[in-house]
Formats: sequence, structure tokens, C-alpha cells
Amino acid sequence: MLAEFLGTFVLLLLGTAAVAVAVVGLPGSGRQTSDFGPANWLIITWGWGFAVVFGVYVAGGVSGAHINPAVTLAFAVRRAIPFSKVLPYWGAQLVGAFCGAAVTYSCYRWAIDAANQAAGMTREESLSTYSIFATFPAEYFGGGIWGPLLDQIVGTGILLLLICALIDQRNLAPGANIGPFITGLIVTVIGLTFGTNAGYAINPARDFGPRLFTYFEGWGAIALPGTFDWFSGYWWIPIVGPLIGGIVGVLVYDLIISPVLKARLAAGETPEEGRAPE
Amino acid sequence: MLAEFLGTFVLLLLGTAAVAVAVVGLPGSGRQTSDFGPANWLIITWGWGFAVVFGVYVAGGVSGAHINPAVTLAFAVRRAIPFSKVLPYWGAQLVGAFCGAAVTYSCYRWAIDAANQAAGMTREESLSTYSIFATFPAEYFGGGIWGPLLDQIVGTGILLLLICALIDQRNLAPGANIGPFITGLIVTVIGLTFGTNAGYAINPARDFGPRLFTYFEGWGAIALPGTFDWFSGYWWIPIVGPLIGGIVGVLVYDLIISPVLKARLAAGETPEEGRAPE
Amino acid sequence: MLAEFLGTFVLLLLGTAAVAVAVVGLPGSGRQTSDFGPANWLIITWGWGFAVVFGVYVAGGVSGAHINPAVTLAFAVRRAIPFSKVLPYWGAQLVGAFCGAAVTYSCYRWAIDAANQAAGMTREESLSTYSIFATFPAEYFGGGIWGPLLDQIVGTGILLLLICALIDQRNLAPGANIGPFITGLIVTVIGLTFGTNAGYAINPARDFGPRLFTYFEGWGAIALPGTFDWFSGYWWIPIVGPLIGGIVGVLVYDLIISPVLKARLAAGETPEEGRAPE
Amino acid sequence: MLAEFLGTFVLLLLGTAAVAVAVVGLPGSGRQTSDFGPANWLIITWGWGFAVVFGVYVAGGVSGAHINPAVTLAFAVRRAIPFSKVLPYWGAQLVGAFCGAAVTYSCYRWAIDAANQAAGMTREESLSTYSIFATFPAEYFGGGIWGPLLDQIVGTGILLLLICALIDQRNLAPGANIGPFITGLIVTVIGLTFGTNAGYAINPARDFGPRLFTYFEGWGAIALPGTFDWFSGYWWIPIVGPLIGGIVGVLVYDLIISPVLKARLAAGETPEEGRAPE
Repeated sequence: MLAEFLGTFVLLLLGTAAVAVAVVGLPGSGRQTSDFGPANWLIITWGWGFAVVFGVYVAGGVSGAHINPAVTLAFAVRRAIPFSKVLPYWGAQLVGAFCGAAVTYSCYRWAIDAANQAAGMTREESLSTYSIFATFPAEYFGGGIWGPLLDQIVGTGILLLLICALIDQRNLAPGANIGPFITGLIVTVIGLTFGTNAGYAINPARDFGPRLFTYFEGWGAIALPGTFDWFSGYWWIPIVGPLIGGIVGVLVYDLIISPVLKARLAAGETPEEGRAPE
Repeated sequence: MLAEFLGTFVLLLLGTAAVAVAVVGLPGSGRQTSDFGPANWLIITWGWGFAVVFGVYVAGGVSGAHINPAVTLAFAVRRAIPFSKVLPYWGAQLVGAFCGAAVTYSCYRWAIDAANQAAGMTREESLSTYSIFATFPAEYFGGGIWGPLLDQIVGTGILLLLICALIDQRNLAPGANIGPFITGLIVTVIGLTFGTNAGYAINPARDFGPRLFTYFEGWGAIALPGTFDWFSGYWWIPIVGPLIGGIVGVLVYDLIISPVLKARLAAGETPEEGRAPE
Repeated sequence: MLAEFLGTFVLLLLGTAAVAVAVVGLPGSGRQTSDFGPANWLIITWGWGFAVVFGVYVAGGVSGAHINPAVTLAFAVRRAIPFSKVLPYWGAQLVGAFCGAAVTYSCYRWAIDAANQAAGMTREESLSTYSIFATFPAEYFGGGIWGPLLDQIVGTGILLLLICALIDQRNLAPGANIGPFITGLIVTVIGLTFGTNAGYAINPARDFGPRLFTYFEGWGAIALPGTFDWFSGYWWIPIVGPLIGGIVGVLVYDLIISPVLKARLAAGETPEEGRAPE
Repeated sequence: MLAEFLGTFVLLLLGTAAVAVAVVGLPGSGRQTSDFGPANWLIITWGWGFAVVFGVYVAGGVSGAHINPAVTLAFAVRRAIPFSKVLPYWGAQLVGAFCGAAVTYSCYRWAIDAANQAAGMTREESLSTYSIFATFPAEYFGGGIWGPLLDQIVGTGILLLLICALIDQRNLAPGANIGPFITGLIVTVIGLTFGTNAGYAINPARDFGPRLFTYFEGWGAIALPGTFDWFSGYWWIPIVGPLIGGIVGVLVYDLIISPVLKARLAAGETPEEGRAPE
């Protein structure tokens, strides 16, 4: 439990801080004199990706480093862990996420206040500083639910599908403990490919922990134009979407890939035989 | 076959979504207030590269993860797989590519419509949203065939030459199942070096699957200024070019590198002897 | 000692040169016609990260490649090295840092002078060229001490926490000598996440060595607006903060993660059992 | 010899094409509407780095993949290869570089001509398209020789110092054939840190091969303002500088690091004992 707490803490500390650098730190430090652009997005996607890498390296040897309730649930569904562990893992992950966001806030509150002051906004009005912690759907969804929900299901489905591949010793699971590095790159690529629709939470703790934290620090009342307000409206999508998506991802892997590999193993073929021909 | 389908599905899902982020997602999310620039291109090249990484990790243990008809044909030519497998692989790859593009579309149609509306264009007029799915030659070719065809031959030639090196145990083939990671970087570097002439399809399924999909969703009639229209004109170049280029790449490797390594192996030298001197 | 000198030399040579490229080299070479922006920051963060990678590859086989007084002190606190080695290591690291900055300066003095001339500034007035070598807090701290100090403690705490994880054979320590590569990525991600508050020294030698060097080359008298001047004021924060933070990071790891792994090992479980479930 | 030819061919093909994408391809394709900036530089530095990665993977198993006359000379100086091999290696490398540049040119001549036309320049006048192939010193050197020469010596010195570390089995040489990947990152980081002073040739073949090629295609008569013209003036610096620098780098490694490792090995300590403590 403590390892899940610490792994998720590292994940959220580094991840939210990457957004903080891109949104308020770099502009506020005088180091960025251009507009917010695609290179800021690269800071965010590499930052979140490496946050996963190191969250897994810290906790992996102890707990397997789910650091994501959607991973925990999906692993329980495929019977890799007992269902009785799900709720305790979720609790540890949520507390870790909350604390990670709190430490990020403690380091960036000067930068946040300076950015809001420069924009003439209160925290309640500032979506950009709120987005350091919580995720939001793009305006073009017009307040609709299905777009962001689909986005979260697809994003987390890919995540779990690829995690299943990376940890499957019958497939091409990376050796020499390089797995955590490659696993983090999954989150980098999801950020590069499904990150802008709704902020790629793909992890209920990653979104709900920091969102809860912002409630105590004066954001929390922001409503997107024409949509729902945060607590009565959007907050459940980055929870329910990932939980569904994770199960979908596991099912796709276990229906399409696992049976072939299991049959081969039963037939006495070694895993190496499945490698690229030469 | 199912593994080839799933691998190509992952490749196209992530790859086309990376272009979607760079072209419509990031600007449409309010996160990019600057012009389209080289950092958008970095999103596309890292995104496609990692799309290959994870397409190979998913399918590699089952099918060898060609996920590219040009790879399949070239491997058949060098007798690494039987010719009878070529057409079934091609079919699975094409269907996977079509479906990957379809899921990307299902997640990005709001962003696409918002971008077209902002530009005052219909889908039929919008080359930039079309380019999320299909590849196009740069304007400076002036409608000529040979430039883009040469570009596709060279790009896919490099791809296969380097794949041959990476899977050759007599050469420096990466161990510990890190091969798929390095293989994906081939596609990143081709994007960084031969990506802008004609969109670096270097894979017939990658281009034709999504192109076919766009036909059903209202693009499809776009003609580049002064050139050929899509179905009667350009579509065959990212099919024929890569198929030729792949064979060229394999031949270069098998004429220049393979004979030396084979002779050494026959002479009883271990592969390690070929490593960098110390 | 010589290895620590050479490793820190490589670290500072590459690291300060990355800032030089971003701040004066690229603009001065005519290759950058846009404003300073987030992609310049990516040059800095990748540059410093790879500087660590190669500093460790050079010195690691001899001295363990601390190349950072905060690492040396924290390792002494956890009894990984004797306390008697701390001061000699610190000395070697400081001299290496000084010399690395000197060689960077010898290559970039033309670029520095051209940039200052273009800005109509003397070296004494130019914070941006000073920042090639030394770190500074962002203006939004308003001259306060606690913000930058907290930032340095948190940044170095993460660094040591993650280093402890990466070298712990009971956890997921990378094999095949890939550890130095992953270790360098820690510094890349700290730059992407805690780099803009106060320049992410997270290493007393990295900041004090070059700062001392600039004293001899005509900067040294710069005072941030409304704050303290360099020698009487800010210089101790990137020394004391990292030394404290490093110990905090080691303690967190040894209180939360180490006991579980030690208990497992004592119970006869092999490290592999702690890996991700499948 | 053929392997050195092919490795250097791949290096130059990908490397010069990366510059072509950044300088004429991306802007000419309509994909870049912003100014040339730091993200273009990232395209160049990642492109050249990966060009090395794959040049080494192609040729490494046969020839050790020097693909750089400065590496060949330095290895001869440290008696890793016989001096009699130096000239044949150099010849193969130069021919490979020439041919790599020629294939890049064959794919990018449309883009080059379009860029020159848009700028209203002939090839003879266009430094930016010339720089796709050959390297030039920054204007701030004012035509001086010592600045660029020092830059080339330092850059190539770092390159060889780090190569020596990476291939030294007594040090932390990466295993599992990951070495070529890490080796390429050396060139990425040199580009990020010593790339803008004089174009980081750090390889006589990399500069002279393409420069010779441009002579036949209509550049070749460009003189930098206030400096020397190309054949009578600058061309020898990216040849002599790297050859000197490479020897310096090898000497530094063999004077500081090698003796300790040799003494330890003689004392019967295994390499593992030199690793990071824990």
C-alpha cells in the first residue's frame, strides 16, 4: 500500500509539475517570450511520460506499481490480483495523488498567483491554472458527455492493451528491467495522440486526487462555457471512462493475443520462435 | 493474422491520432495560440515512431509484427516468410489500418469539424484535415510523379535496410526485447529526415487504409493544385513506392552486409568479434 | 577522485553549453529568428539530462559517479560510503565543475559577447548570459528565500529518491548497464517539472563551481531586482537546499520502500516476485 | 570497407536530410508557418543523433562502425586498430559521405529550388541551402580561425572521450547491444551543446564529403561575410579540428580513467565492484 502511495505520489508530483512548468513556470520565469505552443505540449507529454517511468521504478519492486485505479481494476478482472486488493490499492493511489498535487502546489503557488495576477483573474476564473491539476474537455465538445467519455475509454483501452503486451513474458516483454521505461513511453505517446481532447487523465486517481485538492485551494467552482460545473458535472468522466477503458483493453489483449501465445506455449514452442523472422 | 490486424490497428490509431493532435487537437483545445510550426512536426514524428514501437510490442510475439505490406513483401523476397503468407498478411494489415483510422476519426470528429468551421471550409476543401489520414506530396513537386515516388522508395529502402540490421543476430541486434523500441525510432528518424516531401507513408497499408476510410466520410475529392485527383492519381504512389523501396533496402543489406557476416560465421568467429575495438 | 573530477567536468561542460546554445548560440548563429520559447527549454532539459547520462558513463566504473555533492552526502548518510570520503569527493566535484564551466566559456565567449553587444549590455548587466553558468530564482518569488529553498529541497529529494530506486537490486534496477541512461532521464524530467522556479541546480557543485568561475570573468555583481546580490545573498540556496533535499529523498526511500524489500529478501523471496503481476 | 561505406552513407543520408527537413522541407511543405526556431534545431539534433544510431547498427557487426575518420585515427593512436587500416577506412568513409549527400540531394532538389526561388536567391548566394550539406562558423567569429577550430577540437574530444567510456567493458559499457543507441545520443547531446558555433561536423568525412558534392551542384562559391571562401579557407577546419580533438579525447580517457580500471582488473576486482554503491 505504501509503495502504491509513493508511486502515485511521484507520478502526480512530476506530472502536475510538468503542466505547471508549461503553463505558469516557464512564462513566469521570463524564459518564454513566445505564445503557448506545441513545444509546451511536448514539455507536458514528456513530463507525464517520465513521471510514469519513475513512479513505476520506485514502486514496481514492491507492489507491481499499478499507480492507477484503472490498472488495478483491469488486473483484478483478468485475475492477476485478487479483487479484495482493489479497494485498498485505490485508497493508497488516491491519497498519493492528493499529496503529490499538494507538494506541486506548495512549490508553484508563487508562479500560479503571479500568472493569475498578470491575467487579471482570480483562481476561480482561471481555467489554465486549474488545468495544472485537473483535466477538462476541449471546448469543441460543446459540453457533451459522449466525446470525452469515448476519448477516455479509448485512451485507457490503449494503455491497458499495451501494458498487457509489455508484461507478457510469452510476448516481447522487455528484459533487464527496462520495462518501466517503455511503460512510461506509452503515456508519452497517449499524450501525443489522445491528449488534447480531454487532457488524457486515463487514470481516475490522477484526475480526482488533484481535483479534490484544488477544491481546498480556491478553484473548484469553474464551469466550462455552456457546460456542466465541475463537481456536479464533469468530474466523473475521468473516473468512469478509464475504469471502463481499462477493462476493454485487457479484454482485447486476452481475446486476440493471449490465446495464440498460450496455444504455442502448450505446443512446446519457446517464446523466441515468435520473434521477427531472419 | 489477428496479430497483424491488431498491430496495424495500434499503429494507425496512434499514428493518425498524433497528426490529429498536431493539426486540429492542440489548436482546437485552446492550448496552442501560435502558428503551426516545427514543434507540431515533432509531435507527429515522435507519435508515429512510438506508434510503431507499440504496434510491434503488441503483435511481435505472435506474427513478427510486420504491420506493413512492404515489410511482408521484402521478407518474402529474402525468403524469411513463404510467399503464400503475403496476401493474407496484406489483407489483415489493410483491415487493421482501416479500423485504426476509423477509431481515430470517432474520437476526433468534433475537433475536425470545429477546425473546418473555423477555417470556413467543408471537408472536401480541407487538405489539412484530410492529411490526418492520408499522405500528400509537397506543392513544390508541382504535380510530378517522380519526386514523390523516389522519396517513397528511398524512405522505405532505409526502413528495410535498418530493420534487416536490427533483426540480424550476427550483427548488433538489440537484446532483452529492446528491439521494438529501436525499430520504432527508425520511423521517428525517417519522419525527421524524409517526412516532409510526401508525408512518409513508407507503408502501403498506412496510407491506403485511412485513405479508403476518408472516402466514406466526405473527403476524397480533393485535388492538389495543378496535380492529379486522389483516386485516379496519387493514391498508388504510397503503395508502389514502398513495395519497391522495401525490396531495394533488403537487397542492399543482403549484398553488402550479409555476405561478410555469413563468411565470418562460417569461419567460426563469434558475433562478438565484430564489435567496436577496445 | 580523478573520476569524480572528470565526470563532473563532463556534466558541467555539456550542461552549461546546452544553456549557451539555447540562450546565445542558436539566436547568434542566425538559426533562430523566433523568440526564446519552450523549445529552447527542451534544448536545455535534454542537454542537462544527457550531460548526466554521459558524466555517469565516464566515471561510473571508477567512482560510482556521484558527480554531485548532494548525492555524496546522502550516500554517506545511508552508510553507502564512509564519511571520510565526503570532503575529498566534494573537492573533486567542485574543481571539475569549475573547469567544465571554464571550457564552455572558452568556446562561447564570442557568442556571449555578441549577444551582450546586440542587447546593449555589459556582462555585469546581463542576467541571461550569467544564467548560462549560475542559477537564479524566478522574479515571482520577489526576493524571498523560502520558495527557492523549498524548490531545491523538493527537486533534490526526488533526485535521490529515484536514484535509490534505480540502484536497488531488490527493486527494478535496470540491468545491462542501462542504469546511467535512465539516471540521466531523472534530471531531464526534473528540468521539465521543477526547472523554472530556480534553475534546478539540485547539485551544489553544478551551481557553485560555475558561479565562482563567472566571478573571474566579469559577471558576479548582478543583483536580481528587489533581492539580494549574488555572493552575500542567493549563492547558498543551491548549496544548502540540495544537501538537505538529498537526505530527505534517501530517508523517504529507506523508510517506505527499503524495509519491505529487505523483509521479502529475508523471507527468501526472489526479487522477481515483486514484479508486475501477469 | 563496404560496411564503413554503408554506415557512413546511412549517417550522411539521414543527417543531411534532417537539415533539409528543418531548412527547406518543413517550410516548403506548407507545414511550418512560423519562423525558423529552436524546434527546427531539435529536428536537426535528433535527426543527426539517430543517423549515428542507425549508421552504427548497420555497420557495427562488420567493421566496428567508426563511420568517422576522427574515430579511426584516434583508435589507431590508442592501438585499437593497425595504422595500415586508417587510409582505407578514410577512403570508404569519404565515398560513403559523398554518396549519402548525393541521395539526399536527389530527393530534396525540388524543395531546395523552391526555397531559393522564394528567397529570390541563386544557389551560389544561398547559405541556408548550402548548410544542408556543409558546416559553417557563426558570424560572431568574424572570420577568425581559432574559435571554430577550438569548437571542433572540444566537440570531437567529448565524442571520443565518451565513445571510449561506452566501449570499455571494465567501465559501464551498455550490454544487450544497446551501445549503438547510447552512442548516437552522444551526437544528439553534442548538437544540443556544441552545435551552433560551427555546425558540429566533429567528423571530417561528414563535412568534406557533402562539401565536395555541393561543388558539383552549384554552391561552392559562397564566402561568409568578411571571411575566407570555402575551398581556400574554411574547409580544412572541420577536418583538422576533429582529427586533433579525437586524439585529445582518447588521451584524456586513457590517462585518467583507463589506468584505474586496469589496476583494479589486475588486482582481481570484478568490474561490478566499481558500480554505484548500495
